[in-house]
Amino acid sequence: MIVRDKPTGLDLAFAMRGSIVPHIAPRVLLMVLFAGVLVWVDMEWRRLPRIDSAAYSSFGLALSLFLGFRNAAAYERWWEARKLWGGLLADMRSLAREAELFIADKSPRHDLLRGALAFLHLHRANLRGLEDDQKALALAGPMAQGVHPPDAMLDVMTWRLAEAAGAGAIDGFGLRALSTRLSNIALRQAGCERIAVTPLPYVYSLLIHRTIWLFCLLLPFALVGPAGWMTPVFVAIVGYVFLGLAEVTEELAHPFAMTANGLPLDAICRAAEISLAPHLGEQPPAPLQPERFLLS
Amino acid sequence: MIVRDKPTGLDLAFAMRGSIVPHIAPRVLLMVLFAGVLVWVDMEWRRLPRIDSAAYSSFGLALSLFLGFRNAAAYERWWEARKLWGGLLADMRSLAREAELFIADKSPRHDLLRGALAFLHLHRANLRGLEDDQKALALAGPMAQGVHPPDAMLDVMTWRLAEAAGAGAIDGFGLRALSTRLSNIALRQAGCERIAVTPLPYVYSLLIHRTIWLFCLLLPFALVGPAGWMTPVFVAIVGYVFLGLAEVTEELAHPFAMTANGLPLDAICRAAEISLAPHLGEQPPAPLQPERFLLS
Amino acid sequence: MIVRDKPTGLDLAFAMRGSIVPHIAPRVLLMVLFAGVLVWVDMEWRRLPRIDSAAYSSFGLALSLFLGFRNAAAYERWWEARKLWGGLLADMRSLAREAELFIADKSPRHDLLRGALAFLHLHRANLRGLEDDQKALALAGPMAQGVHPPDAMLDVMTWRLAEAAGAGAIDGFGLRALSTRLSNIALRQAGCERIAVTPLPYVYSLLIHRTIWLFCLLLPFALVGPAGWMTPVFVAIVGYVFLGLAEVTEELAHPFAMTANGLPLDAICRAAEISLAPHLGEQPPAPLQPERFLLS
Amino acid sequence: MIVRDKPTGLDLAFAMRGSIVPHIAPRVLLMVLFAGVLVWVDMEWRRLPRIDSAAYSSFGLALSLFLGFRNAAAYERWWEARKLWGGLLADMRSLAREAELFIADKSPRHDLLRGALAFLHLHRANLRGLEDDQKALALAGPMAQGVHPPDAMLDVMTWRLAEAAGAGAIDGFGLRALSTRLSNIALRQAGCERIAVTPLPYVYSLLIHRTIWLFCLLLPFALVGPAGWMTPVFVAIVGYVFLGLAEVTEELAHPFAMTANGLPLDAICRAAEISLAPHLGEQPPAPLQPERFLLS
Amino acid sequence: MIVRDKPTGLDLAFAMRGSIVPHIAPRVLLMVLFAGVLVWVDMEWRRLPRIDSAAYSSFGLALSLFLGFRNAAAYERWWEARKLWGGLLADMRSLAREAELFIADKSPRHDLLRGALAFLHLHRANLRGLEDDQKALALAGPMAQGVHPPDAMLDVMTWRLAEAAGAGAIDGFGLRALSTRLSNIALRQAGCERIAVTPLPYVYSLLIHRTIWLFCLLLPFALVGPAGWMTPVFVAIVGYVFLGLAEVTEELAHPFAMTANGLPLDAICRAAEISLAPHLGEQPPAPLQPERFLLS
Repeated sequence: MIVRDKPTGLDLAFAMRGSIVPHIAPRVLLMVLFAGVLVWVDMEWRRLPRIDSAAYSSFGLALSLFLGFRNAAAYERWWEARKLWGGLLADMRSLAREAELFIADKSPRHDLLRGALAFLHLHRANLRGLEDDQKALALAGPMAQGVHPPDAMLDVMTWRLAEAAGAGAIDGFGLRALSTRLSNIALRQAGCERIAVTPLPYVYSLLIHRTIWLFCLLLPFALVGPAGWMTPVFVAIVGYVFLGLAEVTEELAHPFAMTANGLPLDAICRAAEISLAPHLGEQPPAPLQPERFLLS
Repeated sequence: MIVRDKPTGLDLAFAMRGSIVPHIAPRVLLMVLFAGVLVWVDMEWRRLPRIDSAAYSSFGLALSLFLGFRNAAAYERWWEARKLWGGLLADMRSLAREAELFIADKSPRHDLLRGALAFLHLHRANLRGLEDDQKALALAGPMAQGVHPPDAMLDVMTWRLAEAAGAGAIDGFGLRALSTRLSNIALRQAGCERIAVTPLPYVYSLLIHRTIWLFCLLLPFALVGPAGWMTPVFVAIVGYVFLGLAEVTEELAHPFAMTANGLPLDAICRAAEISLAPHLGEQPPAPLQPERFLLS
Repeated sequence: MIVRDKPTGLDLAFAMRGSIVPHIAPRVLLMVLFAGVLVWVDMEWRRLPRIDSAAYSSFGLALSLFLGFRNAAAYERWWEARKLWGGLLADMRSLAREAELFIADKSPRHDLLRGALAFLHLHRANLRGLEDDQKALALAGPMAQGVHPPDAMLDVMTWRLAEAAGAGAIDGFGLRALSTRLSNIALRQAGCERIAVTPLPYVYSLLIHRTIWLFCLLLPFALVGPAGWMTPVFVAIVGYVFLGLAEVTEELAHPFAMTANGLPLDAICRAAEISLAPHLGEQPPAPLQPERFLLS
Repeated sequence: MIVRDKPTGLDLAFAMRGSIVPHIAPRVLLMVLFAGVLVWVDMEWRRLPRIDSAAYSSFGLALSLFLGFRNAAAYERWWEARKLWGGLLADMRSLAREAELFIADKSPRHDLLRGALAFLHLHRANLRGLEDDQKALALAGPMAQGVHPPDAMLDVMTWRLAEAAGAGAIDGFGLRALSTRLSNIALRQAGCERIAVTPLPYVYSLLIHRTIWLFCLLLPFALVGPAGWMTPVFVAIVGYVFLGLAEVTEELAHPFAMTANGLPLDAICRAAEISLAPHLGEQPPAPLQPERFLLS
Repeated sequence: MIVRDKPTGLDLAFAMRGSIVPHIAPRVLLMVLFAGVLVWVDMEWRRLPRIDSAAYSSFGLALSLFLGFRNAAAYERWWEARKLWGGLLADMRSLAREAELFIADKSPRHDLLRGALAFLHLHRANLRGLEDDQKALALAGPMAQGVHPPDAMLDVMTWRLAEAAGAGAIDGFGLRALSTRLSNIALRQAGCERIAVTPLPYVYSLLIHRTIWLFCLLLPFALVGPAGWMTPVFVAIVGYVFLGLAEVTEELAHPFAMTANGLPLDAICRAAEISLAPHLGEQPPAPLQPERFLLS
């Protein structure tokens, strides 16, 4: 995730880091070129058919509304994913506290919390499709392989709890509290997986990109009359706004990817480590810092 | 559900799988034909009455807003249905873990989990209207027939629990935890049934399709003046965008149907089987894979 | 509630059942007549003042946005009401299951469930303002009269529970579970009553209907210039879309009324009876079927 | 709150009760006068500069969108406030039922419920800024004075519970149930206070009113050309719609005020009294009725 | 947070406190100047290329929609932050009440509540980035330093509870109730931190500011034809509305900052102190009052 302050005047003019411009420049250039050729044809060779610009602007509006919907849906996915990870962080902290309250023995307590940290890293690696994440491997050991490692890790935590309860180290109240916590974690985990494996309907992607291209390629027919040689400039702006928004939308719709707008899962995992350290009697590590404005 | 990556340039031009084009092509052609005839009449025979294009674009905007609302409502149904199934998956996993914690005996525990898997498949078959789903029949046996099989299956699970509690195998804390889990499952089940049996108000369907047809059939009167022979091209684009969105909307509004945009209930059921396998001492099956981009 | 499939071509042209046309036809005709007179005056007698159509379309847009808001708010009320009834159905089922788990004796359990069914019918009759609903009277007997029958019925259920608890038939865990269930039911009941007694602000109704009339009556001044004798056709379409949407909105905003878009409360009550029958040792009744596409 | 049926034809033309017209008439007249003067100047004296109406309508649209946002936000506050009070009513009823189940003794039970009713009236008086509300004073006595009376009343209820628990009249399950109920009430109370003390950002108010005035005062420059002497009529309509919506928005944003659109807190408090009467062995009072369509 | 009544006529014309005007005046002036120069060039020197104003207004509309989305997202962040703090206030009150009910001893109870107040101030200081907040230092002492002081404070509260439970001062029910309360607090704390550390995607900021500048700088080309010397006036209005909204959005998106639209965290902390005072046997302090309309 890009972490920058409000853009200053200079940023507005030149910032590239975190900007969408580099991703869409080739396509916008293509559109501008096409528009330029059309204007040249119209002016130098033979008059093109014209499209009424009022009618055309109603087309642009329908496209804006649809793009607006898709943007809102993508942003909502991104924000829901962030909420789920914020909830997981809170769950980690509450698990540690409930363990202090309901498990008197230090050893099963520490086992449980180490399992929780391993789960968090396995969950992160699973969402990002990292099959050999070093951190997850180090914490989970052989558990990191398998069909569904984070799910298996929660099972391991459950068996540890069952063992401790069988040994009389946890009473009914504690078992109820801790199993409720585990089911909260499982619910948030399933929420993340839902977002990860269920993309926005593909048909939207197709419909929106096709419509943007149609719009921009036909635009010169509407503009060449009133705007003349300003046409390519206008096509560039419209292409920049529409393609730019479509591209942002695409990134936000995949909140767990390691892109400029992906969520900083590494930093959240680190925050959990910091919060759990005192409960494990360890020294907390330092918080992650962004590198060149990018927090991973 | 169609599972494809972001469309590439080639996909944009030619992708048919997951596209809405094949569904609406006949209707769009009809509109184009009609527009072509009108332009011919206007140009070759006698001038048609003209509609002011600015006034017309305001009609198009009202239609866009209404279509946008319906699209948002349909998407929300689809996404809520997905959330409910994600929650059911988490419930299955949590049920298995709570069973480990609160039921010491292996036999009633396995009975409970087998019942849960049967419930999930019966629920899926019920939502999709599959009366003789093989998988559901295999798991549920004679329970798969009846007025409301998934509901009956949850009753069976309840009676098994009551029996185990009567035999002293579950204490008060466990009974409370497991009955809360069952009521969560029942709430999500009722949510899915709500979506399945309560379509979007029929009057919207009627109003929107009638308005789209009126709009597209009157469009040539607004365009023939400024656009001439470009009119049919424009009618095709407008028809494509409006009918396409209406069609997508129709599919998303029925999230349990086995269409290109229906939810992958088979794959979610399989994920539940994978997660419950270790608790039943079984080998987990392989995850379902999409066939020709389609995950069922 | 109207239950129909996606409209076919013929439905689009002729369907009346579930359509809004019959409700608004007189008003639309009035508008058309008025427009016709104005066009005649303008053409045959003396020229009317003209309104610029671009300016006018911005008025239409403001109206569309406002109508869109009201439509979204009404739909949300309707859908929330449906969610609450879906939740009540799930509560009925969970109550029956929790009764099986926590009340060993058959007699107090059956009393509780019969009370629950009586409550559901009293609640339905209360929301719909049916003072002598046969079903509710049959189930609740003398309880069906009084200031607030469904509320009184929940009190009766509570007293039955308190009696059973006093007699030692329910332990603390069971009492907690069942009282939580009752409070869930009470929360959903209060939610339904909130929707029933709190209409959308009246001022919206007034503002929107007045604006629609102003818009449609002034429309000929904007259209008579560019559209001439097409003006009444356009007025008819605009009146149809705007009045139609306002009318749909009015119906959806009263989700418990017995209109074409009202919720099928009878059918949901029947579903609850079907689900509770096995717990009462009875034969489940058949599900309600729509009559002429209408599910009551 | 105004409680009226769907407006009839006559209401549309003449209804003043519940209408926004009386509040905004002076300002609209001012705008009309200003427009009239400008048209006179333009026609009789010297031509004013003209603004292109297409460009102007885009300004109107931006304003509509912004006003639409504010309206949605205000409505949401109003509806959330209504939800919170509906939830408080359900909490009152559930508290009474849980008291029946978990407190065997009549005297502490009645004390608790009387405290709850006092709380509700104190909460209402607090939200509406009524320092010497008769009903609240009668129920709460000296507690009605103080820094935060409803909060203090909940403390009193807590101390009564603690006392009863100390005397052995409530067991652990009951204490847990009743303290959960109290914390639900406190959460809803805090929600109401949040809405009451946190208005919509003031900057919105300023921005929106300034923009409406700018829009309406500049409107004649855009209309005088195409519309001539119709200009003041148009300004009146636009002013009516925009100022009307802004005014409605202002009222809905303060849902606890005693305005035409304020919530009927008196009626909800009465409903709670009706529901609690049987638990106190009292005769329920009659429900509040609207006076001249206004339910207080 | 600015706390002012509905603006009066005078406020509309002159209010600066709480207005966005001072923040954006320099940029708007720059735009006006640029527009003035262009008009001068066009009129006195040589004709500029013109942009069709209908086409341009569709650009303005796309921008309005996008700005509207961002505004809604920012407002939602602000309102969610307010909800979280309202919930924290309710949690503080409920914690105090649950402590009364479940901890008989006065000393551990007071320790717990003092810890809660310290947590609240540390949380506030943490969100606002105040490293040496006097109030937080006074209450928390050495705890106020460290990697994550509010988190550490909740740990301290947990250890105090564990100690009291170990000494037999709290039973299982109480421990369950209080640990649930702590986990609620932790969830709301994590929610606030989520909002604080996850800004709206930077790419939106960039895209929106760049688009506003492009729009305003190109606006004279669209207006100079129809509007002539009115062009700079129009540019000023458009710049005021768009930049103003963008600026408001920027402030609302950072709800914990000490700006004119930041949330009044000091006042909420004070409200918690007032509510907890009777439980600590102390005299409640006076509520915070706004200074020159600003509540900190």
